[in-house]
Amino acid sequence: MSESVMIYDTTLRDGAQSEGVSFSPEDSLEVLKKLDEFGVDFVEGGWPGSAPKVDEFFKLASKIKLKNTKLTAFGSTGKFGTPAKNDQNLKNLAACPVEWCCIFGKSWDFQVTSALCILPEQNLDLIRNSIRFLKDSGKRVMFDAEHFFDGYINNKEYALSTLKAAVDGGAEWLVLCDTNGGTMMEVIADAVEDVLLTFEIPVGIHCHNDSDLAVANSLVAVERGATMVQGTINGIGERTGNANLCSIMANLELKLEYELNIKDIGQLTELSTFVSETANLAPVPGMPFVGEKAFAHKGGVHVSAIARDPRTYEHIAPECVGNKRRILISDMAGRASISEKLKDFGIDIGTEESQAIVNQIKALEAQGYQFEGADASFELLVRRFKGELESPFKVTGFRVFIDNIGDKVSSEASVKVMDSNGNEEHTASNGDGPVNALDNALRKALSSLFPVTDRIRLTDYKVRVLDGKSATAASVRVLIRSTDGKNSWTTVGVSENVIEASLYALIDSIEYAIHKNTDKEVAQ
Amino acid sequence: MSESVMIYDTTLRDGAQSEGVSFSPEDSLEVLKKLDEFGVDFVEGGWPGSAPKVDEFFKLASKIKLKNTKLTAFGSTGKFGTPAKNDQNLKNLAACPVEWCCIFGKSWDFQVTSALCILPEQNLDLIRNSIRFLKDSGKRVMFDAEHFFDGYINNKEYALSTLKAAVDGGAEWLVLCDTNGGTMMEVIADAVEDVLLTFEIPVGIHCHNDSDLAVANSLVAVERGATMVQGTINGIGERTGNANLCSIMANLELKLEYELNIKDIGQLTELSTFVSETANLAPVPGMPFVGEKAFAHKGGVHVSAIARDPRTYEHIAPECVGNKRRILISDMAGRASISEKLKDFGIDIGTEESQAIVNQIKALEAQGYQFEGADASFELLVRRFKGELESPFKVTGFRVFIDNIGDKVSSEASVKVMDSNGNEEHTASNGDGPVNALDNALRKALSSLFPVTDRIRLTDYKVRVLDGKSATAASVRVLIRSTDGKNSWTTVGVSENVIEASLYALIDSIEYAIHKNTDKEVAQ
Repeated sequence: MSESVMIYDTTLRDGAQSEGVSFSPEDSLEVLKKLDEFGVDFVEGGWPGSAPKVDEFFKLASKIKLKNTKLTAFGSTGKFGTPAKNDQNLKNLAACPVEWCCIFGKSWDFQVTSALCILPEQNLDLIRNSIRFLKDSGKRVMFDAEHFFDGYINNKEYALSTLKAAVDGGAEWLVLCDTNGGTMMEVIADAVEDVLLTFEIPVGIHCHNDSDLAVANSLVAVERGATMVQGTINGIGERTGNANLCSIMANLELKLEYELNIKDIGQLTELSTFVSETANLAPVPGMPFVGEKAFAHKGGVHVSAIARDPRTYEHIAPECVGNKRRILISDMAGRASISEKLKDFGIDIGTEESQAIVNQIKALEAQGYQFEGADASFELLVRRFKGELESPFKVTGFRVFIDNIGDKVSSEASVKVMDSNGNEEHTASNGDGPVNALDNALRKALSSLFPVTDRIRLTDYKVRVLDGKSATAASVRVLIRSTDGKNSWTTVGVSENVIEASLYALIDSIEYAIHKNTDKEVAQ
Repeated sequence: MSESVMIYDTTLRDGAQSEGVSFSPEDSLEVLKKLDEFGVDFVEGGWPGSAPKVDEFFKLASKIKLKNTKLTAFGSTGKFGTPAKNDQNLKNLAACPVEWCCIFGKSWDFQVTSALCILPEQNLDLIRNSIRFLKDSGKRVMFDAEHFFDGYINNKEYALSTLKAAVDGGAEWLVLCDTNGGTMMEVIADAVEDVLLTFEIPVGIHCHNDSDLAVANSLVAVERGATMVQGTINGIGERTGNANLCSIMANLELKLEYELNIKDIGQLTELSTFVSETANLAPVPGMPFVGEKAFAHKGGVHVSAIARDPRTYEHIAPECVGNKRRILISDMAGRASISEKLKDFGIDIGTEESQAIVNQIKALEAQGYQFEGADASFELLVRRFKGELESPFKVTGFRVFIDNIGDKVSSEASVKVMDSNGNEEHTASNGDGPVNALDNALRKALSSLFPVTDRIRLTDYKVRVLDGKSATAASVRVLIRSTDGKNSWTTVGVSENVIEASLYALIDSIEYAIHKNTDKEVAQ
């Protein structure tokens, strides 16, 4: 029979500690709504009084109705020497328009004496009085036992006495924190068991990933009886991050069959992407369950097996978590993976023809092409091969000049292009560097012939030198990612000349946009 | 008492399955040397016959002497219906110049019937006969039991019978693979224990990270008696990656007190960075133990506590793994680490002066410079700063032309250089691509003034785009590795213009050679 586990999200508080992450009050509100929809039990909104935007967020949040989530305010025990009722942090918590507060206190005697610089007994009073004050102010309180596991190893009795103080103060949850993220699984297991035997109230777990074990430690704690997991979406957080709730929720629901209150685990990938976008962090492609690469397959053996039965190389069906299978084209790919890949493009293809394409691709790969990251170039290749596509324009000539006038280096490119009706454009442009100049000139030349060109923006540009040995004389592979605001696509070019390689990738990018645009017009 | 665990690295084989990763034979050789130095027990070089570059690598590797590492060749059991002695894959393995082979076979009955499409008994014969053939060819053999844990759950008896077949064939290691990365910790624990009770030979573990548990599952297996861990540096690998050996080695040695044969865990961060650079993957800042952010502390409470005692917010001392503490709001860490680095160059430096250098370096880092991988540029920077060094020559002007005549694209560069005595050279050269042309022209111009220039050969050229958002207008960092036949050194250049960035790196490279050469003459 399955037990139920609460999910406590601290993306907006501990996650916001992550380098370069900062949520505006509006960002935070959107994340809160998304987590509420998803069915997360608790969302920690921040530390009242720590920053104006946090207070602004709590104000905004108090105006909306949450369906599934309880918003909590975070803080710490009061300052020693100040009565709780006069402690500004505690007063901010008491005044915060939420039902639940989660405050942390020290459970590691070493921390008490070396960081707080007070006596162990004084710390116990702080914990008890701070929680009691919040209870008396009408709040429900959770206690985050900071450094609990370090404390448990160093001085078990004292660590447990801090929990006792929290319970005496009126805490309804004891949350055991591996604040430094250094604790090994067996210690987590023993300590959680011990705490559950010692106290009547439910226990939560809060892990950091400094030993690469945050997810495992959280699961171990649950297996030993913890009924709440604190973490962040995508595991964002200070240093190496917090426990990744995406992995934890997926494992608990899909693998370990615990009961969660979340509505639909199939929304997990969307939730992950949403948080990355809102936090303005590049999504991590290799992230388990929700990453772009989580169900990407490379290499002939795997792909042909996948085609027969996905379970051969997928631990779950990608759809379970709202993710997608991707078949990568690579120098190890055989006919099977190409054919699979062609399906993605709705191109039905006979095996002879596909073999012919495989041969062409292998020839290109020998030159240094790699299509696994360049779907758009791959699609163009296939359509050209099938004669479905004639190039809408040709670059009939180009020049690039790099010149230093005094200390300043200038780059200029001139290009000559001709469309399929014989219309020619010849123009030039400067740029930050030769590739940018070429990019500018090319799109300047094409915009009159193909207005769609103006909507294209390059979002990434990657250069890989293919053979270290010949160094600057080596072939380079250029990958260019482009967007028209709605869709994104990647194209590839290879040459011994980085400029020429870039030009090929640029031409593919623009041709792909024109081709897709025509598709749409036809469809309408 | 501490047991000993073997480390088996498959960065060059399973790691190379990672999207966008492809090692040249020279890259692979460098990685092998680094892993040998580090003290990794086994390094899997690749699948002989799978690609020309793999065979080229094994040829190169057979010419060097390894101090600590056994190089292994990877492959699979033979094809059904072909006698082992006629199976091309097995023949390639037998012919490979290594002592050890690691071949995988299927342990999941479902895989046998649905992927191999043969009878379970036929698969047992395949395993036994394939291994026996390799033994008879004089190899020592490990058996990678593919999908072992899925097989163990689905049909325990059959999964174990595949191991029995491997043992009968003469395998010396049984490596249990969580190929789909979907297995939970308890299953790993039970299965490993069971296998160790059933067989006499040692057991290894091979995990993938699809459930975010690869490191944890590897450690669980070791705790239950596995004595070999297979994984990759930085956890690179297909989909969500392999078990990250960096985290595993650090946890085993520093936390769980197992005995590893590695020489110095203090080199771990350098090893991690080296592999990222060689694979041309951007290092992951949040990676446990070795990431740039692993010991980064944001302002306030944490920092003041850290200042009092680092244990308050660090699970280990960063130096243990060769990493550095970063205090995000102050230069303290910066100064300390630079002073450390200056010692490497035998440059003793007062703290005021070092602070001034830190400031200069921080300014350059803000522009995108990064001296981790560019010691030569760093040394030049420091010596220039101390006034020990005046530039032996100046590039007073340069031009680069890229031009397409018909289908052929030509590159030409002209440079004007002046040495410190006012001698000027003005010359030009063609090249394969603009950077090569510039490189040729520059060395042509300098060879008469500085004969040492003729001995310099560039061995690697790497480009990294620093800001994806602005795409082709983004700054690029160019790393150039040079050798004079005896020594090698790396220099760095940054600019929005890839040509200009390359020029800076080229100038540093040549200046460094001249400077070292003068040193020698002085010494003689």
